[in-house]
Amino acid sequence: MPTLTLKRVAIDTYRENVAFLHRDCPVYRSEGFQALSKVEIHRENDGQPVIAVINVVDDESITAPGELGLSEQVYGQFGVPEGTAVTIKHATPPASLRAVHRKIAGERLDYADYRAITRDIADNRYSKIEMAAFLVGCAEAGMEREEIMHLVRAMVETGDRLDWGEPLVADKHCIGGIPGNRTTMLVVPIVAAHGMLIPKTSSRAITSPAGTADTMEVLARVDLDPGKMRDIVQHQRACLAWGGTARLAPVDDILISVERPLSMDSPGQMIASILSKKVAAGSTHLILDIPVGPTAKVRTQSDALKLRKTFEYVGDHLGLHLEVMLTDGTQPIGRGIGPVLEARDVMQVLNNLPEAPRDLREKALQLAGRIIEFDPDVRGGQGYVIARDILDSGRALDKMQAIIDAQGRNPDPPPPGRLEHRITAPSSGVVTAIDNLQMAGIARLAGAPLDKGAGVDLHKKVGDPVEAGEPLYTIHAEFKADFEFAIQMTDKDIGFRIGGDDGD
Amino acid sequence: MPTLTLKRVAIDTYRENVAFLHRDCPVYRSEGFQALSKVEIHRENDGQPVIAVINVVDDESITAPGELGLSEQVYGQFGVPEGTAVTIKHATPPASLRAVHRKIAGERLDYADYRAITRDIADNRYSKIEMAAFLVGCAEAGMEREEIMHLVRAMVETGDRLDWGEPLVADKHCIGGIPGNRTTMLVVPIVAAHGMLIPKTSSRAITSPAGTADTMEVLARVDLDPGKMRDIVQHQRACLAWGGTARLAPVDDILISVERPLSMDSPGQMIASILSKKVAAGSTHLILDIPVGPTAKVRTQSDALKLRKTFEYVGDHLGLHLEVMLTDGTQPIGRGIGPVLEARDVMQVLNNLPEAPRDLREKALQLAGRIIEFDPDVRGGQGYVIARDILDSGRALDKMQAIIDAQGRNPDPPPPGRLEHRITAPSSGVVTAIDNLQMAGIARLAGAPLDKGAGVDLHKKVGDPVEAGEPLYTIHAEFKADFEFAIQMTDKDIGFRIGGDDGD
Repeated sequence: MPTLTLKRVAIDTYRENVAFLHRDCPVYRSEGFQALSKVEIHRENDGQPVIAVINVVDDESITAPGELGLSEQVYGQFGVPEGTAVTIKHATPPASLRAVHRKIAGERLDYADYRAITRDIADNRYSKIEMAAFLVGCAEAGMEREEIMHLVRAMVETGDRLDWGEPLVADKHCIGGIPGNRTTMLVVPIVAAHGMLIPKTSSRAITSPAGTADTMEVLARVDLDPGKMRDIVQHQRACLAWGGTARLAPVDDILISVERPLSMDSPGQMIASILSKKVAAGSTHLILDIPVGPTAKVRTQSDALKLRKTFEYVGDHLGLHLEVMLTDGTQPIGRGIGPVLEARDVMQVLNNLPEAPRDLREKALQLAGRIIEFDPDVRGGQGYVIARDILDSGRALDKMQAIIDAQGRNPDPPPPGRLEHRITAPSSGVVTAIDNLQMAGIARLAGAPLDKGAGVDLHKKVGDPVEAGEPLYTIHAEFKADFEFAIQMTDKDIGFRIGGDDGD
Repeated sequence: MPTLTLKRVAIDTYRENVAFLHRDCPVYRSEGFQALSKVEIHRENDGQPVIAVINVVDDESITAPGELGLSEQVYGQFGVPEGTAVTIKHATPPASLRAVHRKIAGERLDYADYRAITRDIADNRYSKIEMAAFLVGCAEAGMEREEIMHLVRAMVETGDRLDWGEPLVADKHCIGGIPGNRTTMLVVPIVAAHGMLIPKTSSRAITSPAGTADTMEVLARVDLDPGKMRDIVQHQRACLAWGGTARLAPVDDILISVERPLSMDSPGQMIASILSKKVAAGSTHLILDIPVGPTAKVRTQSDALKLRKTFEYVGDHLGLHLEVMLTDGTQPIGRGIGPVLEARDVMQVLNNLPEAPRDLREKALQLAGRIIEFDPDVRGGQGYVIARDILDSGRALDKMQAIIDAQGRNPDPPPPGRLEHRITAPSSGVVTAIDNLQMAGIARLAGAPLDKGAGVDLHKKVGDPVEAGEPLYTIHAEFKADFEFAIQMTDKDIGFRIGGDDGD
C-alpha cells in the first residue's frame, strides 16, 4: 500500500472527522476512494488508527498529490506530527450499525448492543448520519427503561469517572425549558454552607438563553482544569464549574452535537444524557427538578409521573439515590432571562434585597431543603428551615463569594445590554399566562447567551394586574441586528396573555 | 450587515454544501456563527440565496478574514464569480422539518408535507443528518401506500420531466440484489428491434458489483447529454444510457447519497425512488422484475406479493401502466459477475453462441415478451415467440451494434482482470445453493465495479453435479490488495452449498 505524507489543514470541521486527498493523488485514483468514503488512517509503525471521511481537493496548496490533509479534529486525535508517512484503507462500517438497524426495525437492544454502539461512537467510527439514524431509531421505537439503563451504563463506561472519596456527593439537575430558572447558583452555596459536598458541573446553554455555566461566568471563571476544581472543592465543599473540560460520558456530547441541529430531545436520550453525566461526575445523591406546564418541556402531570418513574427506575439500578420534584413550570422563574440579568437576580436573593424575586428564592429553598435532608443527621421535614436560616443569615452569600474568589472573580462584570426596548400591555387586566418558549426565543434572538448582557427583563408575572400601556418587560441587546430581530418576534406574539375582569 | 468577499475553495464536499469563514473574521465573531451553523448566503443585489454549513478556518491562504470561502458544490450552485460582495445570515431550520418530526412520532403525512420536504431538500435546506432523520422516520414508522404516492409525485415535481411525444414509452426495471442479472442489455435491443420506443436510462452500481450503466460502458459511452440521447432514440428507438446527466427526480439522488452509507433500503423509499425516476423519464409502460429467493432482497412469496400490490397501487394512481413479474432469485443469473464478465455473457446471448448462459437468455426473453405484449397489435401470449424470433434471427444483435455505434463504441474493451484465483468444490455432490450476497460481496472486494475487469466467473450453477476439487468459480482482479481481500472472504464462506447423494 503506497504511503501518504501527513499534512495539517487548519479547518475546524467541529465534531466530524474530515481528511483531504487531492483528486490527482494516485492512491485516490487506484484504490477507489471517493468523496465521503470513510477511511482508516494508519501510521507506519502501527498504533491506533483514526477514522475520517474523505473530501476531495483540487488545490495543491491545501493538500497536494501524495499528501493526506487532516482537519484540526483528526490531527488532534491522531497525535502524529506533519510529515509522518501514513497509509489509508477503506474503513469497514462499524459492526454495531447492525444493532441500530435492529432498533429501527423495532427490536429491543441489550447491554452488549449499547456498549458496542457507544464504543464505536467514542472511537469516531460513526458518521453524523449514522448517529442521526441511531437517535431517530431510539426516539421512534421508544426505549424500554431497561434499555435506558443499559445506555447510561455504556455511556459512563466510555469516559472518565470522578471519585470524590466521600459517601455522600450531592447534586441537582433541572431538565430545562424554563427561562430564568437559575436555582443552582443558590442551591450550591446553601448546601455547601451546611457542610455537604456539592461539586457542581454545569453545561452551557444549548437551545436556551442561558445555562448555569453561562450565568456563573458573568461573576467568575468556570473553565477549571480538573486539578484546580478538586482543590476548590476540597476547600469550599463546592464549585460552580463548566463540565466541558472533564472527559465525562463523552459519547453524550457527541450525540448532542447531532441532536441539537435536529431539535430532538426524546425522553430516553434525555434521561440517559442526564444520568450518565451525573454518574460519571461521581454524584451519589441527586435532586431532579421537572417543571410541568403548558409551555414547559413536560406538559401534563401524567407525562411528568411517567418520566419520574423512569428516572427512579434507572437511578435505583445504577445505585444513585435520586429524588424527583415536580415543580411549577407555567411561567419563567425570577425576572431576568439571559446571563447578566439572571446573575443579578441570583445576587439579589443571596443579598436578601427587598426587590429579590420571591419565586426564585422560594424554589431554591425547596430544592436546597430536599438536598439537606439527604444528610443522615437532618430530621425529615427540617431541610427547608435549615436552608432558609443559611440564606437569611448571609452564610449562603459568604459561601458564594468564597466560591467566586476561588474560581477567579470577574473584576468587571458586564452590564445589561445597552439597547433597550419596552413591551407594554395592549389592554388592562391581569396577566394570565407567560409563554416560556416565546420568552426564551425573544431572549435568544436578542443575543443571549453569546452576548452576556442580552435578554429579557420581566416587570410583570402571572397574577399581576396591569394597565394598558404599562411595561410588561424590557428587551436588552448589544447589537442592532439582534435587537431588531427580537423586537420583530414580539410583533407576532408578545408572549403574555392579559385577561379581562370577566375572568377571560 | 457587513459584507464578505466571495472566494472559491477547491474542496469537493460531495453533496453537502460547506462554506468557510476565518476564525478571526469580524462577522464570525460578532454574529455568533460557529462551526456547523447553517447560513443563507445572499448577493448584494438579491437573487436566490444558497444554504451552506460553516466550517471554521485558521489558515488565511484557504479563507482570510473578510472572505467567505465556498466549496465547489456551493460555488457551482450560487453561480456568482469570485470577489463578489455577499452577506450571510443564520438560516432558519426548514419549515418542513416539523413534518419530519410528526413522521417520527408515527403520524401519516399528506401530499403538502411531502411536497414541502422535497422542495426543501432540492433547495439544499436539509443537512445530511436531517435527511437521515427523514429516511429513518419513514423506514421505522413505515409508509402507507398513499404516502408513497405523495412522495413519488413530490419527487417528480422537483425535477425535470422528459416527454417523448409518443403514447407508448416502454421501460423495464429490476429491484436488484441478483448478481449477473444483466437482462436490460438484451431486452432493450429486442424490444427496439420490434419497433417499440425504449429510451433506457440506468444507474451505476450503488451497492452491487455492476449496474447496467457500468456494464454497457465496457462496450460504449453511456454519459450522453440530453440532446445526443434524443438524437439516438429518434434513430434507433432505444438507447442504453447512464441516467445521471438529466435532472430527473434529483431529490432521489440526494436521498440516496444518505441511504447508501446507512445501508438503508426501506420498501417505501425503494418504491418511491424507482417510480419517481420512471415517471420523470417519461415512461408510460413498465415491467418490474422482482426476484424472490432466500438471499434476494425479497425473501418470501408473501413479501413479494405485498410489494407487488403496493407497486400496482402507486403505478395506477400515477397513470403508469405497470406490470410486476416475480422471478427466480435463488442464485445469480448468467455466469459473469462484474462489468466485463457480464458484458461477455450478454454478447454471447446476442450472438446465439452455444456457450451463452441459458438462464440469462430465457429470463430476458420472458421480460422482452411481456413488454412486446404492451404493443396493442400483438396478440396476448405471442410476445415471447416474437422476442425469440428477433433474438434467434440476429436482429437483436444488429440493433445492439447500432446502439453501440450511435453512443460511441469503446474501441478497446478491457479484458477480465489479469489476477485469477479458482475456488474448487470441497466435496463431491450437487450444487444445492449459491448465496447472492456472498458472491456479490466477493466480486466487490475483487474491485467491481470500479475495476471493470474485476469480479467472479461462475463455472457451476444450482443443480450441477461436481467432483471434489473441480472449479466452482474464478475470481478476477486487477490489484493485489483487492485480490487478497476477495480470496480472504472465500476462506470464511465460498458462497456455494454442495449436497451429498443422500439429498443433503
